[in-house]
Amino acid sequence: MITDSSIKQYLEQKAALIESELLESLPPVWNIPDSLRESMMYSLMAGGKRLRPIMVLAAVEALNGSSEEALPVACAVEMIHTYSLIHDDLPAMDNDDYRRGKLTNHKVYGEAMAILAGDGLLTHAFYSIVQSYRAYGVPAEQIVEIVEDLSKLSGAAGMVGGQAADMLGEQGITGLEQLEYIHLHKTSDLIVFSLKAGGHLGGATPKQLQALEKFGEKIGLAFQIQDDILDVIGDEEKLGKPVNSDEKQHKVTYPYFVGIEASKEKVVQLTDQGKQAIIDAGFPYPDRLLQIADYMMSRDH
Amino acid sequence: MITDSSIKQYLEQKAALIESELLESLPPVWNIPDSLRESMMYSLMAGGKRLRPIMVLAAVEALNGSSEEALPVACAVEMIHTYSLIHDDLPAMDNDDYRRGKLTNHKVYGEAMAILAGDGLLTHAFYSIVQSYRAYGVPAEQIVEIVEDLSKLSGAAGMVGGQAADMLGEQGITGLEQLEYIHLHKTSDLIVFSLKAGGHLGGATPKQLQALEKFGEKIGLAFQIQDDILDVIGDEEKLGKPVNSDEKQHKVTYPYFVGIEASKEKVVQLTDQGKQAIIDAGFPYPDRLLQIADYMMSRDH
Repeated sequence: MITDSSIKQYLEQKAALIESELLESLPPVWNIPDSLRESMMYSLMAGGKRLRPIMVLAAVEALNGSSEEALPVACAVEMIHTYSLIHDDLPAMDNDDYRRGKLTNHKVYGEAMAILAGDGLLTHAFYSIVQSYRAYGVPAEQIVEIVEDLSKLSGAAGMVGGQAADMLGEQGITGLEQLEYIHLHKTSDLIVFSLKAGGHLGGATPKQLQALEKFGEKIGLAFQIQDDILDVIGDEEKLGKPVNSDEKQHKVTYPYFVGIEASKEKVVQLTDQGKQAIIDAGFPYPDRLLQIADYMMSRDH
Repeated sequence: MITDSSIKQYLEQKAALIESELLESLPPVWNIPDSLRESMMYSLMAGGKRLRPIMVLAAVEALNGSSEEALPVACAVEMIHTYSLIHDDLPAMDNDDYRRGKLTNHKVYGEAMAILAGDGLLTHAFYSIVQSYRAYGVPAEQIVEIVEDLSKLSGAAGMVGGQAADMLGEQGITGLEQLEYIHLHKTSDLIVFSLKAGGHLGGATPKQLQALEKFGEKIGLAFQIQDDILDVIGDEEKLGKPVNSDEKQHKVTYPYFVGIEASKEKVVQLTDQGKQAIIDAGFPYPDRLLQIADYMMSRDH
C-alpha cells in the first residue's frame, strides 16, 4: 500500500523536476530585454505546488507512457497558470500586492512590464508544447490536438472567460450557478487540460480521455471550493495572503451560499465522483491520480 | 501591366474576405461571457487595413497555393495584431484614448476587460491556426511549424520583446540601434511571421522561406519608419490619432535621429532591398507581394 508520505515525496520530486525544466525554458540565446526576461522568470520561479504540471505527468504515467516527453507540455501548463496569476493580480483586476508571501509581479517590475510578462508567458506556452515534438518526436497530430485543447480551455470560453465572469461578479450579479461557472472555467478548465494533455501523450482511449475530463472537472471544482474554505478558516502564514482577503474584496465564495459544513461535504463528494471516473475507465496505473485527488482535498494551504 | 488601382482593389477585396472570416471566428455556441465576447469583437472589427493577414494570402498566392486554406492562419495574425494594440493602448502602457478614430478598448469596456480581451484574442489565435488543419486538412507538421513560428515571433524574443524595449526606451535609454531593435521586433516580426506562414502553406523551398523572411524584415522596418514620418508630417484625420502624438509622449522616432529626408530615403532603400529578395528567389507569382511593398511605402495613412 502506498502511504501518505509517499505521495508527498512524489509531489516534491515531480515539482523539483518541473522547476529545473522551467529554469531552462527561455532559451539563453534569445534576445529578450533583460527586465522582461527577469519579470517572466520572477513569477515562473516564485514557487507554488506545481500541481497542474504534475497532473500532466501523472496522467501519462497512469497510462504507462513516458513522462519525459511530456515535460515541455507540463511546463506549458505552468506558464499559462503563471501568466493568469500575474494578470489577475494587476491593479485593474484583483489588485493584490502579495502572492505566496512574495511581492506580486507589478509591484516589483511595474504594471506595463507585468502585462508584457504575462503576454510573453502565455505565448511561450505554445512554444514549449512544440518542444515535445522537436526534442522527443511526439507526433505532430498529437501536438495539434494539445494546442487546440489548450487554446480552447485557457481562452475566452475557458480560463479567460472564467476570470471575466469573476470580474463581472464583483459588480454584484453572482448567484450559485454563476459561481460554479466561474470555478469551472477559472480553475477546472486548466486542470482538465493538464489531464487530457497527459492522456493524449500517453495514448489514452476515448473513454479514458472522457474519464480524465470528468476527473479534472470534479477535482478542479473541489480544489476551488477548498480554496474558498481555506480563505475563510485557513492560516494566514500557510496561505501567503491575508485570510478573508476575498471577503474584503466583496468576492462571493462557495461557503457564502451554503455554509462551511456543506462546502466541506461538497469537496468530499466531488473528489469521490472524480476518483470513481478514473477507477471505472481502467487505467493500468491509476494510483497517483487518485492520491493527488485525496491530497488536494486534505491540503491546508 | 497591373495598375495601381488594381492593387487597391486587391487589398480591398482581401480585407473584406478576412473581415467576413473574423466575424465568424468566435464560435457562436461557445459559452463566453457577453461583455468579454463584445470587447474582443469590438477591437477585432474596428477596421484597419488588414495588411498582415493579406500578406499571408499574398505569400500563398505567390507560390500558386490555395489561399482559402490559409484564411484561419490569416485571421490568427489579425487576432495577435489586435491583442497587441489593445494591450499597448492601456493606461499602464501608451495610455491612448483613441485608435483609428474610435475609443480604445479600455475606454469602452474598462481596463480589466481590455486586459482579458487581449488575453482571449492572443489565445484564440492558436485555436484559429488549428482550424486550417480541422477544416482544410493542412498537414499537422505544417501547423506545428506555424505554431512554433508564431509563438517565437510574437513572444518575448519577438513582438512582446519589442514592446518591452519600447516601454524601457521611454525611460530615456534609446539610441538608433535600440530603435531598430524596437521596430524590428515590434513591427517586422509579425510581418515576417505572416509571410513565412503563407510560405509554409504554399510549399515554399528553404530559399523562398528565407526570401520571405528578408522581405518581411525590410518592409516591416520601412513600414514603421513610414509610420514615424507620417506621425511628424501626416494628416490628423487620415491617421485617426493626433499628429505628433509620439513626440508628446517623448517617444523617440526614426526622423528624430536622421531627419525627415534621410528617413524617406531609408524607406525607399529598404523597400527595394525587400523586393529584390523576392525577385531573386524565383516565385511563380511574385507581383502582389511586390505591389504590397510599393503600396506600403507610398501610403499616406
